[in-house]
Amino acid sequence: MNRTINIKYLIKAVLTFFICFTFGLVKAERGYDLWLRYQPVNDPVLLKQIRLQVENYAVLSNSATGLVIREELGRGLSGLLSKEIESISSENSSLLVATPAQYSGIKKYFDDRELSALGSEGFAIKSVSSKTPRTIITANSDIGLLYGAFHLLKLIQTNQSLEKLNITSVPKIDLRVLNHWDNLDRTSERGYAGFSIWDWHKLPDYLNPRYTDYARANASIGINGTVLTNVNANALVLTPHYLEKVKALADLFRPYGIKVYLTARFSAPIEIGGLKTADPLDAEVLKWWMEKVTEIYEYVPDFGGFLVKANSEGQPGPQDYGRTHADGANMMAEALAPFDGVVMWRAFVYSDEEPDDRAKQAYNEFKPLDGTFRENVLIQVKNGPIDFQPREPFHPLFGAMPETPLMMEFQITQEYLGQATQLVYLAPMWKECLDSDTYAKGNGSEVSKVINGALHGNSKTGIAGVANIGTDINWTGHPMAQSNWYAYGRLAWDTSLSSESIAKDWVRMTYGSNSEVVKTITSILMKSWEASVSYMTPLGLHHLMATGHHYGPGPWVSNLSRADWNPVYYHRADSVGIGFDRTTSGANAVGQYFPEVAEEFGSLGKCPDKFLLWFHHVPWSYQMRSGKSLWNELASKYQEGIDEVRTMQHDWKSLSGKIDEQRFEQVDMLLTIQEKEAVWWKDASMLYFQTFSNRPFPDFMEKPRFSLDYYQSQSFPFAPGIRPRW
Amino acid sequence: MNRTINIKYLIKAVLTFFICFTFGLVKAERGYDLWLRYQPVNDPVLLKQIRLQVENYAVLSNSATGLVIREELGRGLSGLLSKEIESISSENSSLLVATPAQYSGIKKYFDDRELSALGSEGFAIKSVSSKTPRTIITANSDIGLLYGAFHLLKLIQTNQSLEKLNITSVPKIDLRVLNHWDNLDRTSERGYAGFSIWDWHKLPDYLNPRYTDYARANASIGINGTVLTNVNANALVLTPHYLEKVKALADLFRPYGIKVYLTARFSAPIEIGGLKTADPLDAEVLKWWMEKVTEIYEYVPDFGGFLVKANSEGQPGPQDYGRTHADGANMMAEALAPFDGVVMWRAFVYSDEEPDDRAKQAYNEFKPLDGTFRENVLIQVKNGPIDFQPREPFHPLFGAMPETPLMMEFQITQEYLGQATQLVYLAPMWKECLDSDTYAKGNGSEVSKVINGALHGNSKTGIAGVANIGTDINWTGHPMAQSNWYAYGRLAWDTSLSSESIAKDWVRMTYGSNSEVVKTITSILMKSWEASVSYMTPLGLHHLMATGHHYGPGPWVSNLSRADWNPVYYHRADSVGIGFDRTTSGANAVGQYFPEVAEEFGSLGKCPDKFLLWFHHVPWSYQMRSGKSLWNELASKYQEGIDEVRTMQHDWKSLSGKIDEQRFEQVDMLLTIQEKEAVWWKDASMLYFQTFSNRPFPDFMEKPRFSLDYYQSQSFPFAPGIRPRW
Repeated sequence: MNRTINIKYLIKAVLTFFICFTFGLVKAERGYDLWLRYQPVNDPVLLKQIRLQVENYAVLSNSATGLVIREELGRGLSGLLSKEIESISSENSSLLVATPAQYSGIKKYFDDRELSALGSEGFAIKSVSSKTPRTIITANSDIGLLYGAFHLLKLIQTNQSLEKLNITSVPKIDLRVLNHWDNLDRTSERGYAGFSIWDWHKLPDYLNPRYTDYARANASIGINGTVLTNVNANALVLTPHYLEKVKALADLFRPYGIKVYLTARFSAPIEIGGLKTADPLDAEVLKWWMEKVTEIYEYVPDFGGFLVKANSEGQPGPQDYGRTHADGANMMAEALAPFDGVVMWRAFVYSDEEPDDRAKQAYNEFKPLDGTFRENVLIQVKNGPIDFQPREPFHPLFGAMPETPLMMEFQITQEYLGQATQLVYLAPMWKECLDSDTYAKGNGSEVSKVINGALHGNSKTGIAGVANIGTDINWTGHPMAQSNWYAYGRLAWDTSLSSESIAKDWVRMTYGSNSEVVKTITSILMKSWEASVSYMTPLGLHHLMATGHHYGPGPWVSNLSRADWNPVYYHRADSVGIGFDRTTSGANAVGQYFPEVAEEFGSLGKCPDKFLLWFHHVPWSYQMRSGKSLWNELASKYQEGIDEVRTMQHDWKSLSGKIDEQRFEQVDMLLTIQEKEAVWWKDASMLYFQTFSNRPFPDFMEKPRFSLDYYQSQSFPFAPGIRPRW
Repeated sequence: MNRTINIKYLIKAVLTFFICFTFGLVKAERGYDLWLRYQPVNDPVLLKQIRLQVENYAVLSNSATGLVIREELGRGLSGLLSKEIESISSENSSLLVATPAQYSGIKKYFDDRELSALGSEGFAIKSVSSKTPRTIITANSDIGLLYGAFHLLKLIQTNQSLEKLNITSVPKIDLRVLNHWDNLDRTSERGYAGFSIWDWHKLPDYLNPRYTDYARANASIGINGTVLTNVNANALVLTPHYLEKVKALADLFRPYGIKVYLTARFSAPIEIGGLKTADPLDAEVLKWWMEKVTEIYEYVPDFGGFLVKANSEGQPGPQDYGRTHADGANMMAEALAPFDGVVMWRAFVYSDEEPDDRAKQAYNEFKPLDGTFRENVLIQVKNGPIDFQPREPFHPLFGAMPETPLMMEFQITQEYLGQATQLVYLAPMWKECLDSDTYAKGNGSEVSKVINGALHGNSKTGIAGVANIGTDINWTGHPMAQSNWYAYGRLAWDTSLSSESIAKDWVRMTYGSNSEVVKTITSILMKSWEASVSYMTPLGLHHLMATGHHYGPGPWVSNLSRADWNPVYYHRADSVGIGFDRTTSGANAVGQYFPEVAEEFGSLGKCPDKFLLWFHHVPWSYQMRSGKSLWNELASKYQEGIDEVRTMQHDWKSLSGKIDEQRFEQVDMLLTIQEKEAVWWKDASMLYFQTFSNRPFPDFMEKPRFSLDYYQSQSFPFAPGIRPRW
């Protein structure tokens, strides 16, 4: 054979490879792969090193989960290392994934105490050396192994060395679930990424490939449960026609460690059961639920349980029959108990008859019920006492119900936080809540310890995130909103992580490990939440969004049927000042907190600026810590928010050419919208508040572009995320 | 440098390349790329040959369209030839794309007559040889060049040689448009692929990358117009808030040769104009439309015009004021004429007061108006006289309005044809219509000649397809439904193409050129439509679908407010027989056709079996051409449809391992549903018809699985494609 030709051919092939490789890089990134892109490690030294360490891998389990691990490692390692990494069936593989039960040799490297500390979901990864370096992932269950495998892939994705690993990771919260507010017709309440990914019509026979990728993404961040349907529930999902479909999803999700839950409409016994009542103390009603639950478990043997919104915003509930929330929750819990199912009962309730401050109502309602719930009931409490505002103080129920497991309910979908047009990284907000000290047992009684059970020793623990997932190709509409799904999962697994470290991981996995890229995007993420608070609801203002769809400013709205649906109820601006007096001389919402917190929030001098107008009605002329008057401080905050967005825009533009064009352009366009919306918020809000303050705009604030009339006349009948009006 | 190491490195790189290549093949195909996948030519001889022929390419135009051509050829050629093909700016490139105006040398190869015959959209491709072989694409416009470039790419995609090319292609129909029945809230009436791809909320600032890929796909098959909004129109789209958004789309689509059209709600002058009337003869109304149209053209200088559904199914229209359709259409046409805009006025009308056969009403209404329309009005007529049924005879208006340009309205979305759960290739249906002889000017007066203007010499010609495009990753929900979008475009460009040749092109481009794959999928496509007619509405039966959503059988429905909304109106089954007597002794719908056709359809002996029950009420005992009684023939047809689906399933399964796993599995799952649905149609229909025929089911028919009661009790409140009910 002619050697020259041979070499020519080889050179050609190499060139072709580089073109192929280059195409790979410039190929449009549509965002579908989320943080599981598995692009080749681009540090050649590290790549070489890891290739030597992971020459092949073995997953000893042959369960459905074992298969999932094998596939994921195959896909991940081959992608990251840019060569095929072989799956072998020998314990002598360079990467070994096994439980001690699958391979007793594991016990050589992990002692019993180590193993037992892993519990049912934790994992350990250790570098061991015999003749050649080896890496071992172990756990007490296949699901633990799966979590460990994803962790190992994350190490490579984030350009970390695999040398001398000695990692142990155990989740502190048991139930880490997503709440989908998705309707059976595929609309999604408060969904801004298109529509529901659940194609109920084609289930059970058609399993959209998205379902699998959804399960992979969730498993990669430790989410182990999903509530498929809207809390504003439709009882039809409990009928056999739909249970067949639920079963299909549950079967698909099971190997990924994800349990399925449903929302249970309290009046279902009437609507689909033909009963005349849904009274939780009626024996027929209990019987109906017991039979229904038994039926559900026939379809889904590991069904997780029910999420219930009752006696809130028009939903039926036990109070319709003069019963308490505990009566309602316990009735369902009794039906679920034999199957180890749970009831997640939402504390987001407020009553029409109750004239008290809306911020106080959940506490008023639930605090007295502490200790009366069955042990398989968790009370699901939103992070703050109002409703997923850009910033809220932590909910006073945290710490106040020592006998009851409280689940955290975060909202990942950005209902009040810019929806799908604004880049707002939510982890810092969640961390602010989790790190807040309730003082329930004195100093050090953080919210995180309430929900992970450490403070009161609850046996059940849980956390829920209202999903931002929809049919958009990139899943979340705004490409950067993927970070919130990711961060929620990571925090649910480990509330002690910093939002910045999570952001960095996400950026590396999603945009690659170029240090300039990582630095820039992380910095944009980290400043985004404070910016959004500043340009929407600074200084503790809240619930000033336009009616219904909550898109854009509507601080002037005062015509809704319930007082506490109107923004004017919350800001209370008048000629004297602005803010809601929730101190002891006002609504006394501070009285629901433990004394240390009550004193801080309740004192005008001690209350942090960020919560000032949440708790105090403050004169326009009041001198703030900055030295500015309240009026000028307000103007300054709005302007600061806009300026921050412009910095974000500027920083983002510096990434041109450093990341793929498609996502670069997408975020760039969205930041243009965000800047416009920030200005809109400032203009509309400051013009409106000026009608009370009668003060001039300070020079440092850009003049409003239009008149207040103009802003008040804007209407968005088809803003997304609400039920369309026909 | 050590040669050995060098070679080792090269070998490694080659291996890496092959792995990379292999990954390319096994990578999940999500269907997003449609028929523009540009996978490497897998015939090595052909690949080598084409690589020699297309070493580089030059697009001389620097217009926006020129840029699009350059990008598409870059992407396409590099993908198909698996090496980077350089874009150069020399007329001596091996592939040259230029108009004679851009490069006068073109005239050496194409004479004036050839060039002038290309018109404004046609193109020519010629192999020429000087020193080296060269290929030249020419046209009189950049858009023509774009069409030519896509044609060349198609030649390579379908594994055709580029030798001795001498191709001329000119569309025979001017307006080749898609109709999107999409609402401003992103729901899509009769949409089965998710929701609307138009994200109105984020427009104009956010341009979803899908918009560009939508434009590329359409340009690749010659579609040159798109009606963005539902014919059941909302006037808000004509307000500045939305016109800004429309402008953004129009700007994006312009380089691809795609004009934007809107649906105009007839009562818009009242709803958004503040007038008291929409009477087309009112001077204020005309003035309002003239101003509105002028305003629209300020946003979109090449705006295409209006599509109007008036006085039909509750839509407002000129008859509300005692005026005719011509009065209404002409008023809008007058406003559009100065800008060269057109009115596409739909003939799909039927009146509540009119007790005549629904099949006759459009003809009754429009035939008398022939010759009274302004010259920029086209009347848009559905292929058949009822409403996109699985099979209809051609619409009697075709040929009957010689003075008026008639546009064809096909429905690509499968409202009555299995929606997104059934594989039904529609080209054979469209061809049956296009090839039907109207006898308007004697033998040879096919429908295709009516709509391309050849028969009556109309100066304006058009064709519309109701789009099946939605937010699903693969655009059309069912992966195979992409073939219908593709076939519609190809037929709109050239009605003389065979449905099989189009199918073959589509399969090669979408699934690759493996001959077994091409043969099998083409055969599945080609039999699919007849199968669906057989298991849903055989022998000329029609409109037997369940109410509202039209999902599944509902031949028993008789309780709808209008007689002609009820299936019983159409099948007229009784103890004697079944079918709608539309002969001269009945409703005399045959009288609307030219005599030759009327005689064929009107005579029981001559009427083809496929239209028998459309035109005749036939006794159960009637002996069919097959020798069977009508009752047994009906049973036989239903069974035949099911058997065909099972053959399709079987054939599809033979492709396992020959195409990518993801699409293989998707279609496989959907065929399972299709088989169930076919059986459901047969069971429900035959059980119901048996209550009239009182005859036993023949042995060759599988016994129904459930009772008629069961089928009648089925309900699908959330079937897709309709407005949700709140």
